[in-house]
Amino acid sequence: MSIRVQKVFEALFALEDAREVLRQTLPTGLDPDEETVFRTKIARAQAILDNLDERGSSPGATRIAGTLDIRTREEDTINIQPIQAAGRLTPEARKALIAYGDGYSTCDACRKPFRLDKISRPPIAAFHENLAKFLNMDIARVVPGARRGFQAVTNTLVEKGDPVIVSALAHYTEFLAVEAAGGVVREIPVNAQNVVTADATAEKIEEVHYETRRLPKLVMIDHFDYQFANEHDVRGVAKVAHQYDIPILYNGAYTVGVMPVDGKAIGADFVIGSGHKSMASPAPSGVLATTEEWAPEVLRTTAMVGDVTNRKFGIKEVEMLGCTLMGANLIAMMASFPAVKERTMCWDEELKKSSYVIDGLHAIEGTNVLSEYPRKHTLSKVDTTASFDRVACTHKRRGFFLSDELSRRGITGAFAGATRAWKLNTYGLSWKKVRYLVENFQEIAEKYDLAVRREKQ
Amino acid sequence: MSIRVQKVFEALFALEDAREVLRQTLPTGLDPDEETVFRTKIARAQAILDNLDERGSSPGATRIAGTLDIRTREEDTINIQPIQAAGRLTPEARKALIAYGDGYSTCDACRKPFRLDKISRPPIAAFHENLAKFLNMDIARVVPGARRGFQAVTNTLVEKGDPVIVSALAHYTEFLAVEAAGGVVREIPVNAQNVVTADATAEKIEEVHYETRRLPKLVMIDHFDYQFANEHDVRGVAKVAHQYDIPILYNGAYTVGVMPVDGKAIGADFVIGSGHKSMASPAPSGVLATTEEWAPEVLRTTAMVGDVTNRKFGIKEVEMLGCTLMGANLIAMMASFPAVKERTMCWDEELKKSSYVIDGLHAIEGTNVLSEYPRKHTLSKVDTTASFDRVACTHKRRGFFLSDELSRRGITGAFAGATRAWKLNTYGLSWKKVRYLVENFQEIAEKYDLAVRREKQ
Repeated sequence: MSIRVQKVFEALFALEDAREVLRQTLPTGLDPDEETVFRTKIARAQAILDNLDERGSSPGATRIAGTLDIRTREEDTINIQPIQAAGRLTPEARKALIAYGDGYSTCDACRKPFRLDKISRPPIAAFHENLAKFLNMDIARVVPGARRGFQAVTNTLVEKGDPVIVSALAHYTEFLAVEAAGGVVREIPVNAQNVVTADATAEKIEEVHYETRRLPKLVMIDHFDYQFANEHDVRGVAKVAHQYDIPILYNGAYTVGVMPVDGKAIGADFVIGSGHKSMASPAPSGVLATTEEWAPEVLRTTAMVGDVTNRKFGIKEVEMLGCTLMGANLIAMMASFPAVKERTMCWDEELKKSSYVIDGLHAIEGTNVLSEYPRKHTLSKVDTTASFDRVACTHKRRGFFLSDELSRRGITGAFAGATRAWKLNTYGLSWKKVRYLVENFQEIAEKYDLAVRREKQ
Repeated sequence: MSIRVQKVFEALFALEDAREVLRQTLPTGLDPDEETVFRTKIARAQAILDNLDERGSSPGATRIAGTLDIRTREEDTINIQPIQAAGRLTPEARKALIAYGDGYSTCDACRKPFRLDKISRPPIAAFHENLAKFLNMDIARVVPGARRGFQAVTNTLVEKGDPVIVSALAHYTEFLAVEAAGGVVREIPVNAQNVVTADATAEKIEEVHYETRRLPKLVMIDHFDYQFANEHDVRGVAKVAHQYDIPILYNGAYTVGVMPVDGKAIGADFVIGSGHKSMASPAPSGVLATTEEWAPEVLRTTAMVGDVTNRKFGIKEVEMLGCTLMGANLIAMMASFPAVKERTMCWDEELKKSSYVIDGLHAIEGTNVLSEYPRKHTLSKVDTTASFDRVACTHKRRGFFLSDELSRRGITGAFAGATRAWKLNTYGLSWKKVRYLVENFQEIAEKYDLAVRREKQ
């Protein structure tokens, strides 16, 4: 950990300790003892800031609850971890966590009809409208993770034994959401380029229909899959599904929040996004958006009546289990939202940086890109079996030689020990950082006698 | 907002801005421009701390993303809101949010078999074991809210049309969890004291059996209910349920994290707790604990196989949808856990403070306690129809006169405008604060000519 990073954490923590004194006091103000404690905590923060570059304090000074080390991956390194990149918080989201961390912090001004998405202070109701607009859908709900959005849809549409079409590259949470609802996944095969096409979807629907004598209840399609981040023909798939009157769930875990997503143009009946994967939000968080046609089903309100009390909770939505994403996670999503909206407009620039890195890796003798090429996403899978893995074969640290080298250069997030097929994500890295990445990967390669084609980039 | 509270937030936010500079830089360190920006941000934090009591900055200085006001309810007031009390964060949990806010922050060292509860750095696996021990159950999982724990159990046990027994004071999320699984709730009537007894449970089971020719699949019982926070005979109810071989779900939303809970002694098959309600954790968070007998069912792993790829995700648990509570919420739960464990040992002291406040309100002419008395919980429902509501009848602000008076005295959380039946929760307030509460409620009463029995307390 760099000393400055540690000191900034120490100062933040000292201020939280000072804040706690304010929390414990009466509305009438601090008594003399509290004043002394408060002053001491503030003085500690001041001392830390006054000596920001001086060592002296132990790393334990930042340990949380005596046992938890702080996490400084984003401060100390360039993080190319495949799923973490676009879930990195904005400074505004971090401030939201500071201000809204307490359990039911969103619920201070909850009034009739008592539902999260109706709260106007903080402006949660307006955020829901903006979310729907952002995705060009009719209505949106926040959910504790994309998987909970999948579950709401499958649990609404799928009965026991019903087939549900997914892609052969579908994320495991789609499998689970179908299984939890009692359904059975049927995969659309990918083509030679590892891409799902409309034709393959039509064939699969026919196959399922022929075999089971029933039509699938739902088609779930990842716009970009988690394995290669290849782009699949979501519009074509949606068109085919609709020809059979099957609704389509667009899995935007890798798109919503990083690139423009127009649900209506895609023809999606449900758009699901992940807050912690692609919307600069804390986990768990996500979004489920749908159309006016489907909202009455997936967002149906409770019909249950207590047989003794006759109680009804009519406004509460069954699949949402009432209120969904209370507290800090929601406010952090809201705090990141303006930046998130804006960044989706810069997707082309992100693709340029991604290509720059991929080309830089490609220039290392024996390195291949397993994802479709040229890249349409910042997440990519590369194959270094004929480059870094050749080194690993004879290195005493085996595959960890690469992790060691990267770590020494302040690069984290590549799977530790992996030197064959592995993934990286350049989302949100500055040009300075992507250049640093390429330089360092190529330097490592040359250090171990792998040839590098030095092209003008 | 008090000026000091504002300044502490401003300083925290200035440090987050400084931290952002460290995040944007290369591993090789700040360049001269970054150094300047970093120094400016730190200087801003220093200036704020040096002038902690001087007005000058606008309240907008703490606005998040330009639109979100900060929340200072816990700093500026005594908060007696019924559901917020025990979900207030510890300072350690707040530090955890600062350090682990980024989306997939828990997943840096995720290794085979790739499941959240198996991660050992940070010590998530050990936390799961400690959680189970804490509740005296065999196995525990974290979930995004107690309701998601209910859902996992109902979705496992309940088939379409199956009856599920709940209390006539059951929380609405139990209704929804049953409904989402396709079941039907059947309520156990409460007795004259608004308490659920074992006998009433047996009668209800018999009644359901007689009417539907089938036994209920599950009994869900709130140890303390959300309306009165009366204590229900959970051991007796569990015993009766087991006589019919029906498993019991113990809803500990109001107990787990504030008082000792011994699942085995209760006879619970499932223990559910709420992080944001009672474990000093951010929303959404919660715990589901179960026995070795029931774990293979409710925590069953996926059996789904991809028909094209033959993919299996064998380690992932269906009802958990794989990994559950990644990120900051989990680490904050872990950070609060030592303090939470300890505070459950001080439940008697919390009850004394609760009684002190309830007695103090009782001393106001015409005030009644609707919850069972003496109180066994810190959440209580009082009836001020014959006291404060009498004032409201003729006051030009109607019921809001009480909110106004309380707010002026720095007391928040009573439902705005309510002067008849309303709830309060004293959990976690110091003796100094509960004395302040009683004094101020009684002063307000006397100001409006309500008699107060001044007893030596």
